Formats: sequence, structure tokens, C-alpha cells
Amino acid sequence: MSTIELACELIQRPSVTPADEGCQELIGSYLQPLGFKLESMVFADTTNLWARRGTKAPLFCFAGHTDVVPAGAEHAWRFPPFAATRHEGYLYGRGAADMKGSLAAMVKATQRFVQKHPDHQGSIAFLLTSDEEGPFINGTPKVIETLEARQEKIDWCLVGEPSSTNLVGDVVKNGRRGSLTGDLVVFGIQGHVAYPHLAENPVHKAAVAIAELCAEHWDDGNQYFPPTSFQISNLHAGTGAGNVIPGEFHLQFNFRFSTESTAASLKQRVIAILDAHDLDYSLQWKLNGEPFLTESGRLLEATQMAITEITERTTELSTAGGTSDGRFIAPTGAQVIELGPVNATIHKVNECVKEQDLELLTDIYERILEHLLC
Amino acid sequence: MSTIELACELIQRPSVTPADEGCQELIGSYLQPLGFKLESMVFADTTNLWARRGTKAPLFCFAGHTDVVPAGAEHAWRFPPFAATRHEGYLYGRGAADMKGSLAAMVKATQRFVQKHPDHQGSIAFLLTSDEEGPFINGTPKVIETLEARQEKIDWCLVGEPSSTNLVGDVVKNGRRGSLTGDLVVFGIQGHVAYPHLAENPVHKAAVAIAELCAEHWDDGNQYFPPTSFQISNLHAGTGAGNVIPGEFHLQFNFRFSTESTAASLKQRVIAILDAHDLDYSLQWKLNGEPFLTESGRLLEATQMAITEITERTTELSTAGGTSDGRFIAPTGAQVIELGPVNATIHKVNECVKEQDLELLTDIYERILEHLLC
Repeated sequence: MSTIELACELIQRPSVTPADEGCQELIGSYLQPLGFKLESMVFADTTNLWARRGTKAPLFCFAGHTDVVPAGAEHAWRFPPFAATRHEGYLYGRGAADMKGSLAAMVKATQRFVQKHPDHQGSIAFLLTSDEEGPFINGTPKVIETLEARQEKIDWCLVGEPSSTNLVGDVVKNGRRGSLTGDLVVFGIQGHVAYPHLAENPVHKAAVAIAELCAEHWDDGNQYFPPTSFQISNLHAGTGAGNVIPGEFHLQFNFRFSTESTAASLKQRVIAILDAHDLDYSLQWKLNGEPFLTESGRLLEATQMAITEITERTTELSTAGGTSDGRFIAPTGAQVIELGPVNATIHKVNECVKEQDLELLTDIYERILEHLLC
Repeated sequence: MSTIELACELIQRPSVTPADEGCQELIGSYLQPLGFKLESMVFADTTNLWARRGTKAPLFCFAGHTDVVPAGAEHAWRFPPFAATRHEGYLYGRGAADMKGSLAAMVKATQRFVQKHPDHQGSIAFLLTSDEEGPFINGTPKVIETLEARQEKIDWCLVGEPSSTNLVGDVVKNGRRGSLTGDLVVFGIQGHVAYPHLAENPVHKAAVAIAELCAEHWDDGNQYFPPTSFQISNLHAGTGAGNVIPGEFHLQFNFRFSTESTAASLKQRVIAILDAHDLDYSLQWKLNGEPFLTESGRLLEATQMAITEITERTTELSTAGGTSDGRFIAPTGAQVIELGPVNATIHKVNECVKEQDLELLTDIYERILEHLLC
């Protein structure tokens, strides 16, 4: 079995979130003969796999997801999205880059490593879920909860998210911004526009506070993170009628925040701005994830070395982009980085990956294991 | 036929906008024997009546509408809304106060006046429509257009809208504010909240301009008008998703404006504020009506005198409240005032009018005719 062959087998299973379609069982069938102990953890509609080889510390873990986003307009694809078509050096299909290619590379790298070093130091694990692209409730968070409860601790975690920009390994994510959502309702008094003295327009009352929130400078970011960003994503007021002063003003905003701020500090500052304007409001918060950062350590060193050794490239560290399941693993104290193929086509039609990149990725993953566990 | 009896007959016809249900024909059947020439003017779904007695100037015109707003929750009514129930000195029913009571008083006052003064000076007219509560397209504006085209000119117009607050005649409307609506779309660039540098949030861009519009002092009003008021009635942005920066920001606002401002001056000032913030936007205007004012003149004098003579009350002049069809008549150069019963129950369940008030109103209307045409 080669990396490409395994990637094809995985892509041919249309495992749209939260379906796994047997992907984890397939991966398990390669890991078990290598000495991995398999533990399937099913929570509600989500299938997870925890597989571990060895019992000693330190524990190195490959993390990833077997689910994919929907294919979208199938007629717009050059090749059927779940056919796994190899064409002119590229492998096409939903999940090729995000992240069945990475999963195949992880399995193949582990196979090679274990065959060469059956008595390696520490342990190797796989943490796989089928809901990374979905609501992230019954996947990685629940597995981590289970591990924490039995004090099973990951030291180094490599998430296979497609981190690369142009060439495989050119970018490694060593952290992610936090994400915090606020749902604000400002209350006024509904009335007829002809009688404004009998009503109280919540849009007017809140206008200056909203302008201040939009203009606020939250922090400067730091070496690893861009400045914290605030964005109003949705807002609504009014009955639709042109002659009615609205009674409520609904507004949803989202922070993507650096490690220079915390969810608590941002909440406090939003509330201080609202309270300075004497508003009658309710505010609900949802913390989608605290920011995390793996600033240094053996995992990062091993990864950077491996990339340079295999590709002769110098990798760039980045914390940009959306969230990943790394945010659930980092709070346990694990060092977490993300390294995977080029992300140019992810979530799009004609998702594809360069076959050669999957080979390089396999080599890099294997070399990381060698740096850490030999 | 008494005022109350005619009011009952009219209420029993459920003439919800734009239906007339024969109300105008019924009124015509009383006016024709008095020497009125009837002209039914039907435009699309709207029935209008122009009835005139005499050909000489000056022309005094009673204006009003036979349509009513819907009854709403019928079970919440004390008496069926279209039964015209007399109970303890009050007449109940949809349209009792707005404005079938006034119509009955106009007809009865005219009947008495013509019988006493068959050779009165000038002319008397009725301008009735069935869409005052609706879109005001095929009603009074079209009748006025027809009259203007043949150079038939109203000198004095009394609109029967329920102007009174506590006692009949305590308030006369001698003008109305203008109404101007703006539909604003501010354009940005949609994007993912994780990549704000690739998007442009139109809510953020417009926030300061909106706050300035809300804080702007448009004018001080004057002796007759309260200051011009600006109200945002509807606003919307966002796709509903929490992680998408909206591409457009939609906002609807309405001015109720005094004669110290004009539609043109308000438009110019809004545009100046928007342009000062370098926004990419589109803005559509709808002028619902210019403000009008009958500051003095024989109609106002006659009305004030008549009210004092009949009720011993001093009337208050007001320009407050919503729009009325007076706005379409005043631009022809006519003096326009509004005088009708107490408006406490209009558009509500259990709409009612004091029977005695309709008798007083009949007397006042008759006395106004005497002051002007004898």
C-alpha cells in the first residue's frame, strides 16, 4: 500500500460530516498489525478513533478528521468528487487536500517508521474524528475529555490540516487565533415614526456605541498573531414597515483574537463601551475557542528540521486562518502544530493535491517521528 | 335622516380599503336632491366621488374617505365591528371615528344649510375617496389631478379626519409635517471573518456616518411645527452565518419634517454626511408628502369661531400626527384644515364615537358653512 493508494481508498468513501463511511476502520486495519491498540469512541452521530502504540511517555499524536465538506455542484467538477481520479500528477477528489491525503501520509509514515524502529521511544497515537467540519461537539472535544479523565496525556500533537500555501511545508501553523461571538439585543420602545417622543429608537440609542466598537483598537497582536479583529457579522432592526420605529436592535459580532487578549478581557471591554452609553441590552457570548500558541519546543524544532532536510525549504510559522481542532488539544498542555498539503483548493470544486506532495509529506512525517522518538 | 342614522348606515357597509361598498352612492343619494352634481371617478381599484353644488367661486369642499382599516381581531370587539351598535350614548363600529361619523355630519350639516340658504354664495363640494388608508395612489391625488386639469379650484377644504383629542373641537389640524423616506444600501466586500483584510465590512465603514445622522439636529421647528425628526425604521446586514463579513448594509429611514426644512434640503444634508465618510452607497428617496400649513385665512377664522360658538371651547391648532390626504389638496393653493371627532379609539378594537359629539360636529360644520358662504 502506498500513500496515494490509501488516499484514493479514503476519498472513495463519501464521508460528508458527520459520516465516517468506514474510513477509520480502514485506517485501523493498517495500524493494528503495527501494534496499535484501537479504541472506537462513538458520541451521538460522530465516529472517533483513538489508536495508540506503546504505553510510555512521551506521547506523539497524529490528529485529523475523516469527514469532508459536501461536494457542492457536482456538475462543476472536472472529475466526479468521490472517484479519486489521478490525472497528470495530481489526485482529484473531495478530501484530497483536506485531509485524507494527510491521513494516508500519516499511516504510511508510521508504517515505515515502526518497521524500521520497532522499539522506538515513547508512544505514537492517532486521534481521528468525523465532525471537524461540523459542529465540533462530539468529536475531538469528547475524545480529549475521555483522555483527560483517565490522565492520558499527549505531549506532541501534529494536526494534518492543509497548512501549506504554495509548496508542501512552506508554512506550518504553530497556533490559531481565538474566536468569540457576541449576540447583542438593544431594547427600545416601538412606536409610530410620526410620534417619536412616545417611542425610543434602539438603533439611535446604540449608534455611537456601535461606532466606538467598530473603531476600537483591541491590541497590537504580537510576533505570532495579527492584531485582534472585531467584525459585525449580522444585524437587524425593524418590522419591515416604513412608519414603525423598531423596538429591538439585534446585532451579532465576532472576535478573532490574539494571545494579547483573552475572552474575558474582550467581554469586559465590550460591556464597558455599551455601559458608557446607558443602553438597555442583553448580551450572550459563545467562546468558539481560546487562542493557542506553540512558541517553541521539541515538536516545532523536529518539524522545522524535517522539512528542511526533506525539501531543502525553510518553513514559515503562521497562526492565520480559521480555527482547527488543535484548539481543543492545546489546552491540555500539549505542544500542537499543523502541517499538511497545499490548501489552495480546499472546500472548492476540483479539490486536488499534487501526488508528489503526498510523498514528500510522508517523508517529512516519518522524519519528525525519527527526530522525536529515536 | 339624522347624523347618527346615516353614520350607522355607513358603518354597516364593511368598506375595508380599497372597497367603498356603496357608501359614496348612499351619500350621493342625499346630496343629489340638494342640487349637487355627482361625478364618480373610478381609478383602478379605487372609487372616488366628486359632488358639487353651484358653479361660482369661492368653492368650499368637504374632503374625506369612505374606506376603513381592517377590524383586526373580531373576537376582541365588544360589539361586532360592522354592526354599528348604539350603547350608553356611544356609537361603536369600525369607522365610527375615522371617519364615517364625520361624513354623516358633513352630509347632515350640508342638508340643513342648503335648506336654510338655497341661494348661498360660492359653491359646496364633496371630495370622497376609498383609499385614504391604503396606498394613496388612485384616490385623492388622481381626483386633484383631474380637477387641476380642468382648472377647477378649491378655495377652502375641510378634511373630516378625527383631529380632536379629548372633546370635539379641542384640536384643529391646520397643517401636517412632510414625510420623506430614504432607502440606503452601503456596499462593502463580503468575506470570511478570519480574513478581515480581504473583506470590507460596510457596517463598520458606515457606523460613524449613521451615528452622525442619528445625532444631527435638522431644524428647530417653528410656531406651528415641532422640530424635524429623523428615524431609522429598518436595517439589515449579514447572511445569518456568524463567520461571514456582510457585503451590503441596508438601511431605511424616515423624516417627518417641518416647514423649516424641505425635502431637497434634507436630501442634500444626508448626502453630505454620507459623502464625508467616503462610502460606496446607493440611495433611493420617496417623498410621501411635502409639509403644508394653513397659517391663517377665512377658513381658519370661520372654523375657530364656529367651534367657540357651538361648544364655548377655544380650539388649539396642531400639525402633529401622521399624514392625511390634506397634503394632496394643499399644494393646489387651497386653505386646508382638519376637524373631526375624538381620535382616541381610531384603528383600535372597539372604535367608537360619542353620539353627542357627532351632533356637535354637525352643528359646527353647518356654522362654518354659514360663516363662509352667507
